[in-house]
Amino acid sequence: MKEINAAELAKLVNGKLIGDGDRKVCRAASLKDADENSVSFVAKSKYEHLLESTKAGVVLVCKDLANAPLNGRTFIVCDDCDYAFTQAAGCFAPPPIVFEPGIHPSAVVHPTAKIGKNVYIGPCAVIEEGVEIGDGTVIGAGCYIGHFTTVGKDCKFLANVTVSFRCRIGNKVILNSGVVIGCDGFGFLPTPQGLVKVPQTGIVQIDDDVEIGANTTVDRARFGKTWIKSNVKVDNLVMIAHNVVIGESSILIAQCGIAGSAEIGRGVILAAKSGVNGHITVGDGVQLAGTSSLAKSAPAGAIMLGTPAETQREFMARHTLPKKVEKLKSQIAELEKRIAELEKK
Amino acid sequence: MKEINAAELAKLVNGKLIGDGDRKVCRAASLKDADENSVSFVAKSKYEHLLESTKAGVVLVCKDLANAPLNGRTFIVCDDCDYAFTQAAGCFAPPPIVFEPGIHPSAVVHPTAKIGKNVYIGPCAVIEEGVEIGDGTVIGAGCYIGHFTTVGKDCKFLANVTVSFRCRIGNKVILNSGVVIGCDGFGFLPTPQGLVKVPQTGIVQIDDDVEIGANTTVDRARFGKTWIKSNVKVDNLVMIAHNVVIGESSILIAQCGIAGSAEIGRGVILAAKSGVNGHITVGDGVQLAGTSSLAKSAPAGAIMLGTPAETQREFMARHTLPKKVEKLKSQIAELEKRIAELEKK
Amino acid sequence: MKEINAAELAKLVNGKLIGDGDRKVCRAASLKDADENSVSFVAKSKYEHLLESTKAGVVLVCKDLANAPLNGRTFIVCDDCDYAFTQAAGCFAPPPIVFEPGIHPSAVVHPTAKIGKNVYIGPCAVIEEGVEIGDGTVIGAGCYIGHFTTVGKDCKFLANVTVSFRCRIGNKVILNSGVVIGCDGFGFLPTPQGLVKVPQTGIVQIDDDVEIGANTTVDRARFGKTWIKSNVKVDNLVMIAHNVVIGESSILIAQCGIAGSAEIGRGVILAAKSGVNGHITVGDGVQLAGTSSLAKSAPAGAIMLGTPAETQREFMARHTLPKKVEKLKSQIAELEKRIAELEKK
Repeated sequence: MKEINAAELAKLVNGKLIGDGDRKVCRAASLKDADENSVSFVAKSKYEHLLESTKAGVVLVCKDLANAPLNGRTFIVCDDCDYAFTQAAGCFAPPPIVFEPGIHPSAVVHPTAKIGKNVYIGPCAVIEEGVEIGDGTVIGAGCYIGHFTTVGKDCKFLANVTVSFRCRIGNKVILNSGVVIGCDGFGFLPTPQGLVKVPQTGIVQIDDDVEIGANTTVDRARFGKTWIKSNVKVDNLVMIAHNVVIGESSILIAQCGIAGSAEIGRGVILAAKSGVNGHITVGDGVQLAGTSSLAKSAPAGAIMLGTPAETQREFMARHTLPKKVEKLKSQIAELEKRIAELEKK
Repeated sequence: MKEINAAELAKLVNGKLIGDGDRKVCRAASLKDADENSVSFVAKSKYEHLLESTKAGVVLVCKDLANAPLNGRTFIVCDDCDYAFTQAAGCFAPPPIVFEPGIHPSAVVHPTAKIGKNVYIGPCAVIEEGVEIGDGTVIGAGCYIGHFTTVGKDCKFLANVTVSFRCRIGNKVILNSGVVIGCDGFGFLPTPQGLVKVPQTGIVQIDDDVEIGANTTVDRARFGKTWIKSNVKVDNLVMIAHNVVIGESSILIAQCGIAGSAEIGRGVILAAKSGVNGHITVGDGVQLAGTSSLAKSAPAGAIMLGTPAETQREFMARHTLPKKVEKLKSQIAELEKRIAELEKK
Repeated sequence: MKEINAAELAKLVNGKLIGDGDRKVCRAASLKDADENSVSFVAKSKYEHLLESTKAGVVLVCKDLANAPLNGRTFIVCDDCDYAFTQAAGCFAPPPIVFEPGIHPSAVVHPTAKIGKNVYIGPCAVIEEGVEIGDGTVIGAGCYIGHFTTVGKDCKFLANVTVSFRCRIGNKVILNSGVVIGCDGFGFLPTPQGLVKVPQTGIVQIDDDVEIGANTTVDRARFGKTWIKSNVKVDNLVMIAHNVVIGESSILIAQCGIAGSAEIGRGVILAAKSGVNGHITVGDGVQLAGTSSLAKSAPAGAIMLGTPAETQREFMARHTLPKKVEKLKSQIAELEKRIAELEKK
């Protein structure tokens, strides 16, 4: 385990040291789990009370807490505690697992596949006909890359990822285990002979710097492409249906789902378990609250909550109804008394 | 890329040509993505306004739009535009990926397994003892078929599907990647010694023409069988618990879930993210809205919304409450004034 | 198929025989599916009416039903029918699938891995550098165990499970197919250069006797560990985010999700599709209803419903609003009449 002192750590995270610079640090931990050789952090002044009970020897604090009582600890004051703590944690982290370039003898790589330089292909991975894989990419054990799919440079597919045929994956794309890209979209036409499958003849295109979480699924388009643009980050167990388009730098949190042909703008946040209806447009920067379901198109910048999703104002009007109704009830009782009084006259 | 002209296309989709029959078509696309060599479609007259901005050279239109202005385009009037466009799109689609019959040398097939004619078993697939696989079936790379499971004819299991032991899969069943069939149902008895696992000794039976989406799970029965009847279509990331029965031609959309021992009728539609409680009965043709949760049995044909799900009438009564309460509030204010007036007398 | 008589069955389940002890039983089935050679069960007196239509020859009944009319059937009165039926079903179940110890020649086991006694490693499984696997553990076909991960004794990983590097799995842990343990948590910092990945340098620790359902995902910690304590039972398609802690014997039902750093107590029940916000504390024994979303910490023993989740009392106040509003409306109409009457005077 690495060991540095508080002064060195302050330098590393570009923060200002307050207190004992010689204190040894060999671990990054939450305030709760920290011991005297740990560095922890408090990024917001509203969490100041948590400083009382932590055993952390060194705490990265935000500027507002620079004058909080040290109580024998060492503070490092940082502009961005969250980022600084990430740097500190990296300093004590075990070395990353490295996949040395090479194709494992148990991998099955079609002779027509074009494999770039410094590519790693893990045990029991399967690379089909006509696949192209760019330099520096890691294809984990048990992955399947379907016919004529192209994968860019410096991608990292963890173990047991599935990418079906003719998809286009950009550079520096991370696919976590269990991800399924390019299975058929869900399309059936009701006919007198029953439900008939609508051929899904399109593809999935994923642009650069996208990360997709474990067991998430992205369906191939009915025609054209399902398209995830650059820098989009998708969490686990998310469902992205056929012909969906997701704009740059949008964030899709766990277990959310987007129905067919919806268009999501840039910088959108879909919180956990939220849903977006098919064939609607979600403007740039829209934020959809957790478990909320967006049934109609939303303009840029809208913050939407509930099912069906409403604006914050509408949502609060609905949410506070029980209190309002109680108030009306007592007002009516009051009126009733006054009327009874009048009737007596 | 294939190229045909509008007159040929009209013949292919059995539609009536209006305008230039010589126009070249080499692509099927949405109205938005279309260029002058594309065919696109407008299936309902309410979307007529979309005709204004599309660049599509040829548009399949419904009968109601037969007299809409051509503006230099070619129309093909169709009885069922959705179906006709599917045919058109198929015409320009790349050739499908074909899995030529044969067992890949890296597949692990138990000597007791009975493999039919013209079966494909992909790289690193594992077929256990006593499995039977019918003629013409495709078992993708990395699939696992457990002991004594039977798979019918002309099935297609995409890469990395898991089917556990003793399950029964019919003919023409499609399982998309990441599907898990036949893992243990979720059953534990609370005892003084803690939670004790209830053995799940039943199976999963899937009848003909069923399609199941990526990363969906179907649990084996506690006893007897979990049963998905013919022509049922299941989307991605759906959860079907032990001893559930699903009637013919029902549709289960992404991320919905059905708890243990629920019985779903024929032709039921469970929309995205909806849920059905355990041990209840869902009548034929019931439609459960997206994200809604059905807590009690529903009669045939019911349309249910909300959590817990209610009829449309009940749902709307709840949904319009904020307006109703505002109205009551102003009525009360009005009465208050009138009473004050009376009290002055 | 095994065959015993009712008297033998009564002995086996430690129940009291009423009626013909010679009746043959060769099957366990639900009341609906039972035939005359089946044993079924009625665990609660409120289900007595189901006895009328069943064809079951032998029925395990609870004490309250000991005097119900036999109608030619045999009853076995049991203290705990649910448990007794589990024993009975086990008696007629097909023999379990046994994975004989041994490493399949197609498995890829790193030479530094330490494999215990009587371990089974299935076809195409991949065991990376420095892995340790305890005695009697079963690693199914196609599983991936990442670098330096330790797995305890008598675990059972079904086919196609993924456990990433440096995780710690205890004894008697069951991981169903498609489970993904230890992929990166979802953490990104917004910067002027776009979203930057926060390194996830922690691990996942899973204690003894945990069972995890198909296609569930458990993310590795940002630092420290994501921790599932002993005897926790997790259903299918559940999302457990980074740094979550789950207390002993808690139950997580299908498709629920827990956001980052939430702390779940002991004996908590999160019902199907429920959600828990990040960074909150859920007290021991809390029950969160299906589809409900807990936004704030809940004290021990709380029963919470709705989104955002409320107490039962608050939930019912909200749920019964339509009726209350209708009542207020008629009260107002009544007052209006009385005022009009007064105004006439």
